[in-house]
Amino acid sequence: MSLTKNDFRAQFRCTHETCGKTYSLGQVIYSCERDGELLSVEHDLDQLKKISAKEWKDLFDSRYRSRAFPFTSGVWGKKEWVLPEIKVENIVTSGEGTSHLYDANRWAKDLDLGGLFIKQCGISHTGSFKDLGMTVLVSQVKQMIADGVPIDAVACASTGDTSAALASYAAKAGIPSIIFLPANKVSTAQLIQPVSNGALVLALDTDFDGCMAIVKQVTREKSIYLANSMNSLRIEGQKTIAIEITQQLNWNVPDWIVIPGGNLGNVSALGMGFEMMKELGLIDRLPRILLAQAKNASPLYDSFQSGFANFKSVTAQKTLASAIQIGDPVSVKKAIRILKKFDGIVEVATEEELSDAAARGDLYGLYNDPHTGVALAAMLKAKERGDIKKGDQVVVISTANGLKFTEFKVNYHERKIPGTDEKLSNSIISCPAELGSVMEILGKKLNHYK
Amino acid sequence: MSLTKNDFRAQFRCTHETCGKTYSLGQVIYSCERDGELLSVEHDLDQLKKISAKEWKDLFDSRYRSRAFPFTSGVWGKKEWVLPEIKVENIVTSGEGTSHLYDANRWAKDLDLGGLFIKQCGISHTGSFKDLGMTVLVSQVKQMIADGVPIDAVACASTGDTSAALASYAAKAGIPSIIFLPANKVSTAQLIQPVSNGALVLALDTDFDGCMAIVKQVTREKSIYLANSMNSLRIEGQKTIAIEITQQLNWNVPDWIVIPGGNLGNVSALGMGFEMMKELGLIDRLPRILLAQAKNASPLYDSFQSGFANFKSVTAQKTLASAIQIGDPVSVKKAIRILKKFDGIVEVATEEELSDAAARGDLYGLYNDPHTGVALAAMLKAKERGDIKKGDQVVVISTANGLKFTEFKVNYHERKIPGTDEKLSNSIISCPAELGSVMEILGKKLNHYK
Repeated sequence: MSLTKNDFRAQFRCTHETCGKTYSLGQVIYSCERDGELLSVEHDLDQLKKISAKEWKDLFDSRYRSRAFPFTSGVWGKKEWVLPEIKVENIVTSGEGTSHLYDANRWAKDLDLGGLFIKQCGISHTGSFKDLGMTVLVSQVKQMIADGVPIDAVACASTGDTSAALASYAAKAGIPSIIFLPANKVSTAQLIQPVSNGALVLALDTDFDGCMAIVKQVTREKSIYLANSMNSLRIEGQKTIAIEITQQLNWNVPDWIVIPGGNLGNVSALGMGFEMMKELGLIDRLPRILLAQAKNASPLYDSFQSGFANFKSVTAQKTLASAIQIGDPVSVKKAIRILKKFDGIVEVATEEELSDAAARGDLYGLYNDPHTGVALAAMLKAKERGDIKKGDQVVVISTANGLKFTEFKVNYHERKIPGTDEKLSNSIISCPAELGSVMEILGKKLNHYK
Repeated sequence: MSLTKNDFRAQFRCTHETCGKTYSLGQVIYSCERDGELLSVEHDLDQLKKISAKEWKDLFDSRYRSRAFPFTSGVWGKKEWVLPEIKVENIVTSGEGTSHLYDANRWAKDLDLGGLFIKQCGISHTGSFKDLGMTVLVSQVKQMIADGVPIDAVACASTGDTSAALASYAAKAGIPSIIFLPANKVSTAQLIQPVSNGALVLALDTDFDGCMAIVKQVTREKSIYLANSMNSLRIEGQKTIAIEITQQLNWNVPDWIVIPGGNLGNVSALGMGFEMMKELGLIDRLPRILLAQAKNASPLYDSFQSGFANFKSVTAQKTLASAIQIGDPVSVKKAIRILKKFDGIVEVATEEELSDAAARGDLYGLYNDPHTGVALAAMLKAKERGDIKKGDQVVVISTANGLKFTEFKVNYHERKIPGTDEKLSNSIISCPAELGSVMEILGKKLNHYK
């Protein structure tokens, strides 16, 4: 079969084991009409298998370097595996994907690792990995509008990165966006991205769950399309992280992928990307996955202690890693399946551990947000304990841009986060504007470096 | 000549017309020993010309987004044109360059332009275009240290993006960095990037000029290497912006490049990149350049009114575009030469104009910092006046990440910047958590969109 002849197909399928009812991706639908279960996107693997693994790799490589729309995007370079039937003119891209795989070579050496790479998903258009999924969702909405489906707007309940990504991609497409958030719980600074992108931002006198309830009611109308993570289109974009990391390592699978987890959609998407590559012959083994949770919101860690025999949701406590402050994760079933298959482990980081790990990484040239701090702390603990071994090649997924977390960084270095390691903090030194005094300080401090 | 045989050479040359004394790039030197004039990096063009234009393009294309170190970097993909003699193992890269050329297609249509692209230099490792130059400087320092030159640290006087880039690249290389800044004039939040990256940050009881004086004295020692922009190594990295934009447009030259200017090193580097491509046959025409200044710091605009017949420095007034709040630009001579050659024009933006232009761009999906706001405002004014014509293809260079300017964005939408356009601002709407009320607001507001 020729690659130019597009015979690739995808559809929604009910995730309930015995149901399996299918729906067109062009339908406004988020859960099964028969049993209310979530849907997932199912690709026609038999068709995809008619292309050899080498051809897929060559195709993806040729597009990775492309300057031609829409392949400037790392997500749309894998178009056939994401949304095969979308018309190219309806793709809404801001150059998501192709984020840098930062080679922390000095740190790897200090840790006796075979390689330590940080996948910089936060250095992207809206500053988080959410761009990867949102380009897919908004593009599909544009396709549906072009096909005559009467959609007036896209909506989500969110207090952070999801709303930023939705508002930006919707603005690019010229589609109105609506954000629901709990009144008095979010500052304008936290919401300034969607506000700037012209979203209709509604503050409701309720909590986050109340906002979710309202967005579900509002989107029942079908003229307002739901962009929250129960919409499985976003997973299709996020799974390209797995493909892109492997591609950046010259189609070699690392020993470990470390990823922070709250709602657990991210680790599910990561796993699905690797599974698809293995199924289609692009790789012949799977990496191990280290799922990192903030100790204050770690129901999956508790479950892991019993070999995932049982899972109990918890009430999440406050954590600096606010995006993963979730006690009842939506995608827990998918995540457990993936972790079992990938010989995965779960580790937790306390507030001090995540802060110190973020700061330690910064001393090697990074600028870590607290969620990446959770992943880095888990990596260090797993290395210390011997799960991650000397010589292993490790990829840590950084999910957001440190520039979004100025207060976290300032508080750390002003020693306002209790229990952190003084040796990792840094402060500004006052000095007279006079050569002698300056040289004296430099003499002392630079010797300290040696 | 084969490309694999590296016969390419570069050296420092005194910029004084009648001097021309040359120095090795491996020397610790920033100005001419004979006359004190600045140095510039000079390439052996005769050697470079032995490779055909087509071969250069093919080589650069083959390296664009390559996964092989060091060509993951957009700067080092042009290694022979940047620092031809550096040993690859001394290159310090954080994946700078290959930033996305954002296609603002809806805005282009609204403005009747043939194309409007935003070069997203701020979506990079430390969040500004300074990464492009700093990778070159820090790599050359690493090379010199490897060659036995006794360098203990790198230093600069800076209150913003330069210090962030220096500290991060130095941390990656494991070289101590020193930042001088005026005491009580910079908050920890502004300096938190270099503080996090472990720089030695000294607050001196003087102003910025006093800090510059001290850093010049300190670096006279030669064991501390100067990283401020009088060091012309940084220009070599910055000039790759020109090459990369052209490459991303499939080696077509746009009609206009719009760039914000303060110290004017940036526009000089841009021009040099285009000159080098023309000299080596990769392009056959030059774009026009629109240099954009904040009205509160616009000595070059004043000079442009007299056809650059004379130039007078000014005392810069406060502007939201703080990085270009400069009244006495270091690179003014180079910039005027470039602007004359590129049929350039200079335009200014008031505080209201830069704020409104940034906000207008955000409504098309961008998230603009105030410096990009200056460039966008100048673009809109030049279009309005007819300098930029219907159908022209325009590239606007965005120099920094909007995430660094939360206060600017919040103040704009809270209507705290006097004289701005109310229609462009947005606010959060309070609403009871009840379907009827929500639908009533949505009904009104979504109709407003239509």
